[in-house]
Amino acid sequence: MTMSELKINQRLIMTPGPTMVDPRVSQAMSNQILGQFDPDFTDIMNENMALIRKSFRTKNQWAFPIDGTSRAGNEAVIGSIVSPGDSVLVPVFGRFGDLFVELAERAGGKVTTMTTEWGTVFDQDRIIDEIDRLKPKVVAIVHGETSTGRLQPIDRLGEAVHRYGGFLVVDAVASYMGTPVEVDKWQLDAVVGGAQKCLSIPSGITPITFNDRFAEEINQRKRVEQGVRTATDREGRNFITSNYLDLTQLQDYWSPRRLNHHTEATVADYALHEGLRLALQEGLNSRFSRHLKIHRALNDGLTAMGLSIYHAGDHEMPMVTCVQIPEDLDGDAFRAKLLRNFGVEISSSFGSLQGKIWRIGTMGYSAQKGFITNFVALFGAALLQSGISVDLKAGLDAVEAAFTTPKQTLKTLEV
Amino acid sequence: MTMSELKINQRLIMTPGPTMVDPRVSQAMSNQILGQFDPDFTDIMNENMALIRKSFRTKNQWAFPIDGTSRAGNEAVIGSIVSPGDSVLVPVFGRFGDLFVELAERAGGKVTTMTTEWGTVFDQDRIIDEIDRLKPKVVAIVHGETSTGRLQPIDRLGEAVHRYGGFLVVDAVASYMGTPVEVDKWQLDAVVGGAQKCLSIPSGITPITFNDRFAEEINQRKRVEQGVRTATDREGRNFITSNYLDLTQLQDYWSPRRLNHHTEATVADYALHEGLRLALQEGLNSRFSRHLKIHRALNDGLTAMGLSIYHAGDHEMPMVTCVQIPEDLDGDAFRAKLLRNFGVEISSSFGSLQGKIWRIGTMGYSAQKGFITNFVALFGAALLQSGISVDLKAGLDAVEAAFTTPKQTLKTLEV
Repeated sequence: MTMSELKINQRLIMTPGPTMVDPRVSQAMSNQILGQFDPDFTDIMNENMALIRKSFRTKNQWAFPIDGTSRAGNEAVIGSIVSPGDSVLVPVFGRFGDLFVELAERAGGKVTTMTTEWGTVFDQDRIIDEIDRLKPKVVAIVHGETSTGRLQPIDRLGEAVHRYGGFLVVDAVASYMGTPVEVDKWQLDAVVGGAQKCLSIPSGITPITFNDRFAEEINQRKRVEQGVRTATDREGRNFITSNYLDLTQLQDYWSPRRLNHHTEATVADYALHEGLRLALQEGLNSRFSRHLKIHRALNDGLTAMGLSIYHAGDHEMPMVTCVQIPEDLDGDAFRAKLLRNFGVEISSSFGSLQGKIWRIGTMGYSAQKGFITNFVALFGAALLQSGISVDLKAGLDAVEAAFTTPKQTLKTLEV
Repeated sequence: MTMSELKINQRLIMTPGPTMVDPRVSQAMSNQILGQFDPDFTDIMNENMALIRKSFRTKNQWAFPIDGTSRAGNEAVIGSIVSPGDSVLVPVFGRFGDLFVELAERAGGKVTTMTTEWGTVFDQDRIIDEIDRLKPKVVAIVHGETSTGRLQPIDRLGEAVHRYGGFLVVDAVASYMGTPVEVDKWQLDAVVGGAQKCLSIPSGITPITFNDRFAEEINQRKRVEQGVRTATDREGRNFITSNYLDLTQLQDYWSPRRLNHHTEATVADYALHEGLRLALQEGLNSRFSRHLKIHRALNDGLTAMGLSIYHAGDHEMPMVTCVQIPEDLDGDAFRAKLLRNFGVEISSSFGSLQGKIWRIGTMGYSAQKGFITNFVALFGAALLQSGISVDLKAGLDAVEAAFTTPKQTLKTLEV
């Protein structure tokens, strides 16, 4: 078999992930490998822990990456905190709430769900009432639900969960590094971030953090594996089913004990280091403002063009824009053509929203004026070509105007 | 917090993984991201499946990577085939046999182990007798046991396991791409390869393969997750505990159905593509001969220098050299100095072998004349500096001589 080397065609990726990678991250990834126990590498591991803490605005000791994609992070957290029979409450407002249900069920949890109409979020009081009623061990909730483009307020849930000794687990995969995720201030017990979303590094590594109380709870299940186990390692009750995603063993790997576990994904750690370094160098608040500003500009542009935003203004994620697909247009066929002819990628959605909305991401590296200006121009042109009547000039003017808005006005948009 | 960009120091990594990455692989990894459902990317996924099949010399339809390190691959296979109560036989001859025990126990398997002295391998007849006695559902065995440097013959086990309808699972993480792993010829039902060993790509992605009979068995446990489940997706009995490492869901992702699961680790797939392409371009037989030749040359060099090889000639892996640490020398202190002063990395071992042997890897990209010549020179020099009397000239002469051996003689070394 002869096979050619890769030839990657030019793309303008405007999906809610995976996003385009910052070229500076790619450069960092081209560095040579270091051994996993090389002191130079364990220094990088420690720096990554420090960077992750900063990114989550937490003082938690436990802040490290999982060597897997975001769902591996979610599974590591749920699989470690949920023992068979544990009560778990999952408020579901989109596809990734379903994933939490799935993970909790696989862990043997007794899951109670509550739902709200897709395209909306929960009033926190409604969730708190349910917490008061159920007193669950775990509440697992999505912060930024990319499937519907909603940002769920979660700042008051921690306090409610803690009244009954429970744990609040948050999937912040899509919101992380694009809007504040205040781990300590909001009393979140375990949080999962994302790589290939607003951090703009390649998929395959997932930063997480959890607090000491969470650590104490999961360590009751601790089982150090045969082969590296010592006489002082007792085996906990109800050990965690996964070895690879066992947070208690990962703690031993991500601490001075450096107990042999997997072979850390060196290059992914390089990417994480550079991605987080760039984000903190930009400043988290500036980064969050940038996302909001770009999101508003894109919204303005698409609206001015004559398109309708799905559930406009209703707790929109400031990095995902959901556009209603014009009537009589096959959304998937249009997307395929947009990609094939123009190299521009946008997303469809899941379940009941499939065929109804397109999702456009402005995350991390892609949240730049140049990209969204090009995007609006190409997207509008492709719509015109498909016979959809849009006002392309009005759209582009609105994007331009969004960037000439006086600073004063923008201030009020800041989070 | 200000943090500098990464500065990676020069290294000569001669460990049994992670190995130095071929620079051509790093270049492939610097390509831009593609979306996971971009036809250009799904083409790459399909090419990777074809490349993995070739690498394992199998006609299996199911050959794809797991987005995690090698142990994630092992867990995916064991966690999918072992249901609670299933009988599992694990012949243990080193640390990675223990890992199979661990994974099978976490999956709820009833595990029987058999052991042999570390530094040796099993006579296959002994294992076959045990298979006849136990008739286990699963036999899980390591092919190349890096902890002791042994290569276990496994060509006759499949037939024995199949007599009772069982499944043979093989950890070929360290042997893969360095010595033949004949999946079809040896009747191996599921096999896990490695990235950061003889393939010389970064850790974080793991090629696996399994046959249709294995697929049929695990699909009785299939559970398609909520959110992407359709009316025709029935839920199997005893569903697999992990979602992330559920091979049945991964089959749906790695097939025309392309059912949404995780976000494939794009750049890791680029690395896998280039690593496998280079290996197949070299030719598997040539690659295996190269490993053997380099291994012999290193053995000759170290022996001529006056060092002793651990269990010399006894089923040595042709990519791991185990050297007995000279008496009165602190092996770990020496390794630290070798790394600090010369930038050269070698490994210690586990358990009872810790402090007794060093392990030197000649895997993939590091299995080159230039590297081992430099290695022998630096290693010998460091030993001299530590007061160990070695004959450095004799060592270097022996390495040189190994490469001037007439082709005729080498022929007999080929596998």
